[in-house]
Amino acid sequence: MNRLKQTDLYARGSSLQVFGSDPELTSDFKVPDGENATALDGNFFTFPGFRNFTANPSDAPLVTTMRADLSNFAALDGLGISSTLVVAPPGTVNPPHVHPRASELVFVLEGTVDIGFVDTTNTLRTQTLKEGDLFIVPRGLVHFQFNNYQTTAKFINSFSSASPGVARLPTTLFGTGIADAVLIKSFGVTADVIDKLQEAEGAGTQPGY
Amino acid sequence: MNRLKQTDLYARGSSLQVFGSDPELTSDFKVPDGENATALDGNFFTFPGFRNFTANPSDAPLVTTMRADLSNFAALDGLGISSTLVVAPPGTVNPPHVHPRASELVFVLEGTVDIGFVDTTNTLRTQTLKEGDLFIVPRGLVHFQFNNYQTTAKFINSFSSASPGVARLPTTLFGTGIADAVLIKSFGVTADVIDKLQEAEGAGTQPGY
Amino acid sequence: MNRLKQTDLYARGSSLQVFGSDPELTSDFKVPDGENATALDGNFFTFPGFRNFTANPSDAPLVTTMRADLSNFAALDGLGISSTLVVAPPGTVNPPHVHPRASELVFVLEGTVDIGFVDTTNTLRTQTLKEGDLFIVPRGLVHFQFNNYQTTAKFINSFSSASPGVARLPTTLFGTGIADAVLIKSFGVTADVIDKLQEAEGAGTQPGY
Amino acid sequence: MNRLKQTDLYARGSSLQVFGSDPELTSDFKVPDGENATALDGNFFTFPGFRNFTANPSDAPLVTTMRADLSNFAALDGLGISSTLVVAPPGTVNPPHVHPRASELVFVLEGTVDIGFVDTTNTLRTQTLKEGDLFIVPRGLVHFQFNNYQTTAKFINSFSSASPGVARLPTTLFGTGIADAVLIKSFGVTADVIDKLQEAEGAGTQPGY
Amino acid sequence: MNRLKQTDLYARGSSLQVFGSDPELTSDFKVPDGENATALDGNFFTFPGFRNFTANPSDAPLVTTMRADLSNFAALDGLGISSTLVVAPPGTVNPPHVHPRASELVFVLEGTVDIGFVDTTNTLRTQTLKEGDLFIVPRGLVHFQFNNYQTTAKFINSFSSASPGVARLPTTLFGTGIADAVLIKSFGVTADVIDKLQEAEGAGTQPGY
Amino acid sequence: MNRLKQTDLYARGSSLQVFGSDPELTSDFKVPDGENATALDGNFFTFPGFRNFTANPSDAPLVTTMRADLSNFAALDGLGISSTLVVAPPGTVNPPHVHPRASELVFVLEGTVDIGFVDTTNTLRTQTLKEGDLFIVPRGLVHFQFNNYQTTAKFINSFSSASPGVARLPTTLFGTGIADAVLIKSFGVTADVIDKLQEAEGAGTQPGY
Repeated sequence: MNRLKQTDLYARGSSLQVFGSDPELTSDFKVPDGENATALDGNFFTFPGFRNFTANPSDAPLVTTMRADLSNFAALDGLGISSTLVVAPPGTVNPPHVHPRASELVFVLEGTVDIGFVDTTNTLRTQTLKEGDLFIVPRGLVHFQFNNYQTTAKFINSFSSASPGVARLPTTLFGTGIADAVLIKSFGVTADVIDKLQEAEGAGTQPGY
Repeated sequence: MNRLKQTDLYARGSSLQVFGSDPELTSDFKVPDGENATALDGNFFTFPGFRNFTANPSDAPLVTTMRADLSNFAALDGLGISSTLVVAPPGTVNPPHVHPRASELVFVLEGTVDIGFVDTTNTLRTQTLKEGDLFIVPRGLVHFQFNNYQTTAKFINSFSSASPGVARLPTTLFGTGIADAVLIKSFGVTADVIDKLQEAEGAGTQPGY
Repeated sequence: MNRLKQTDLYARGSSLQVFGSDPELTSDFKVPDGENATALDGNFFTFPGFRNFTANPSDAPLVTTMRADLSNFAALDGLGISSTLVVAPPGTVNPPHVHPRASELVFVLEGTVDIGFVDTTNTLRTQTLKEGDLFIVPRGLVHFQFNNYQTTAKFINSFSSASPGVARLPTTLFGTGIADAVLIKSFGVTADVIDKLQEAEGAGTQPGY
Repeated sequence: MNRLKQTDLYARGSSLQVFGSDPELTSDFKVPDGENATALDGNFFTFPGFRNFTANPSDAPLVTTMRADLSNFAALDGLGISSTLVVAPPGTVNPPHVHPRASELVFVLEGTVDIGFVDTTNTLRTQTLKEGDLFIVPRGLVHFQFNNYQTTAKFINSFSSASPGVARLPTTLFGTGIADAVLIKSFGVTADVIDKLQEAEGAGTQPGY
Repeated sequence: MNRLKQTDLYARGSSLQVFGSDPELTSDFKVPDGENATALDGNFFTFPGFRNFTANPSDAPLVTTMRADLSNFAALDGLGISSTLVVAPPGTVNPPHVHPRASELVFVLEGTVDIGFVDTTNTLRTQTLKEGDLFIVPRGLVHFQFNNYQTTAKFINSFSSASPGVARLPTTLFGTGIADAVLIKSFGVTADVIDKLQEAEGAGTQPGY
Repeated sequence: MNRLKQTDLYARGSSLQVFGSDPELTSDFKVPDGENATALDGNFFTFPGFRNFTANPSDAPLVTTMRADLSNFAALDGLGISSTLVVAPPGTVNPPHVHPRASELVFVLEGTVDIGFVDTTNTLRTQTLKEGDLFIVPRGLVHFQFNNYQTTAKFINSFSSASPGVARLPTTLFGTGIADAVLIKSFGVTADVIDKLQEAEGAGTQPGY
């Protein structure tokens, strides 16, 4: 299967660099280095990149995603909020992932979608969300979405940080070069099972330790 | 003109009590007093109240608003995020207001809407937002929205707090009983001008000091 | 009436630029860029600008105010506190305003003064303060002071931020160019009432949107 | 293979309930409800549970772990720090996991251990740690430890929260009842691969959605 | 010499209990347990205890102090600010002390006073403050005041916490029962020197360990 | 007696400059200015300086200490945690000190050690810690350790800040040049007692005010 890595999926809206710090502000907003506050008009506070956003068919069976965060919307700096827009054609999933720096509030724009998260007592909670529903995923917990229905679903996820970060677990675990021995023992399976997981995520390009 | 006070406008989604505190969590989420974590299923984390929300014609010339925050969606407690859904028929305004405890990220669901905020150097910044646009209002600043267009606009505002609070300034200033002398001197106008402002906002029911 | 705008009132103690960020410190204090910690002596930690501060008669019917915050007292950076000194001759008001980033603790140095704030349930609370009294205004709420007595009052306001910011609402609302249509609908009054409010605050100098 | 679930592994030091909140303190320390500050002596501030802690052979191929956090050491409440002691016999792993609420500072007490974490750009960083070494894992990132050496390793992990929480990813993903369709699509593998992973983690006991 | 202990000095304004927590608020202010928000009028937000406060001659050679913090002014809860009023007759000192939870902004109400603090690089910074001066003491550092002048000085100290706490070091070190051996080795002096210090601070009433 | 000043004791692991700020991160970790995230490998996240750390005999009767914090381990920046390693030969003390920016969690690596702290109600709490024990010292409180036993003790202290700071009180009080009059009045003793304390700490090199 031709799987996209997270770096590809997010590349549309972000240059994926590692950012500096997001201190609590002592000004109304953060003026980018080298710019002048008075020269910043309404456009600086606007992100038009979500207009007419649609699914990319080659992303299937994964959803198509665009972020609006500190990486591409500088006015958010220090203001503690950001968003991601997700388009989920029938049968697609947003694979299990974590945001290390934020809670997530999901709002369903159209369609129906299943959502679930697992807390730190290993309890799974799931819900089928209809258009107009809100759902809250607490900070740092593993969660996923699945459009198991006949029509495309769209939802916008808002985060309690200007830079929530995301680790998609299939890629994090099986596509970054974690040594086979660690994975075999951790998941309690044989080497050929790990091989198949790594193959799907493109592992092996990074040297092991 | 028959003007609704803020207490009316928000009464649909909230009982408007003054809340207790929202400490940073040391648990995955906050279990309400008297409830059991294991008994909380996916419904606890879901807010269905925004489904099929529509404008209330008697709100004109103001927009119709519903909040989903700590007052009616307990799972948000301690998670630093909440939302308000706004329906703005043509010609309606969301009057100048402040949220004392949050920045606001506006996402336009349908239609076109003008938005503006004033920073603490008295600079007004405005923008005409189209469907799909995001706009950020920094924490604690005076802002407003105005549908100066031919079709109904809908937008969802997300906040960087589970309980942002709101003070609608026309009511705050002219509908809560602030003494005439304070208002006359502060706004630099004559008593009859203040009278007209208070009349529109229903002042006089509270005793002055 | 010859009204001063906020930018005039505050110009004495501040150059009113928009500041950078105020992160929590991991040092004892913040050494300004380009300076050396060991060269900073007791003067760096001292603000002498409040000595012999007196009312400016041309400010009436408004109070005379001087701030000591991040804009003119660099040693406060990151330490979460600042102050404003206010002199209120008989009959003057400190007009309704908000501080987006701080609570305010008022201490009356001399005289008597009326104070009030409006919370987010539209409840006005007022008090007549005597010399020596403390009064707390919670973060981000609309508040005002009024010397309705025969002698000059002086008070010092301390804030829970090195840079609380301030939006004086008469100027914010009627002196920054917010479109007439927004104000007419928001305040529920006719255009001539808005005109008088704007005239007092000098509106019309900024282009509308 | 007889695999222990996380709930078993941690049961020695904790009753695993979901806790209330951990607010920033305005006292020197937090007196538990119903207790008296003056009755709290040095024992209240001491955790003796790590004395003589040893590996449990039945945990292999996983490490043996004991936590000292808000669940079993009440004096930590509000103080922003806690610890976990880990004993890793030769060949054991601490499987990939995340702490939703803390960074982790590892200190090696004896032996040699490999450690790695994956950041949100999918970059794996690994290191071989010797006795006496410190290693920092940033907040919320996936990380693991592996004793690939001939002697038992011991290390103590300190956290920047009194209640960091932990989600061991093999159990979180394959032992909590996430629907097969979600896992098959997310990991890009066939159903029989997912079956093997779930079998190892004991999935199937929870109803799917 | 008849020395007052800190517990005596502060007893006027406080019952000196250890408080609960001071979480960041998600309400405008914190309603005390068992009270009703609407019943709280302007008096709740006012602290009149500083009116006509004067020096207690028996405090000499120490200053006389009254606090207004969470212990006696409940409305401050969660609002991040509090104050202490100090009267310093000629020749009195406010002995070296630390506030574990706050920076301190000193404002001189009358007279002249010497102030100093020591940072964590062991650098002492001092200043002679005149009436009207502000001086900032960064969070957690050792500081003191000394009226080395001919007239009484008065100053009000504002803190960046509703409950800064205070440890007066002479009493903390020599009046709480720290074992003689610890003090002798720590201060590098003989037992008779430590005896004299303890005698002045009333040590010996607590059992050593 | 030949006493080392704190600046000497800490010089081994630190250059003792005053640092800039430690904002909450909006990235996984803080990349040092002028460096590239991708060039930072596992070594950047490792501190090897504690390997084989031993007591320096000339430190007696004080303990020997090495820190690993923002001053010498840059990867900690923004992550809210750091450590100090302490070796305490028989009879040595870690003199009373405060950390202005952190709580401290002590873990005993070997030997037995007495520990104590004094809270802001002047209550001393002490404990005799055995190998394997944890002990928590709340933020900003005066505390000390004393090896009153026959064998060398070693312990590692972890802090809830990347830069906790430390003020050793004997040096802070008697070795930085605080004026004699302040000390005489504060401690309630005669000048010759203060002289002996200052002599032990090397005071007199700094000019008084």
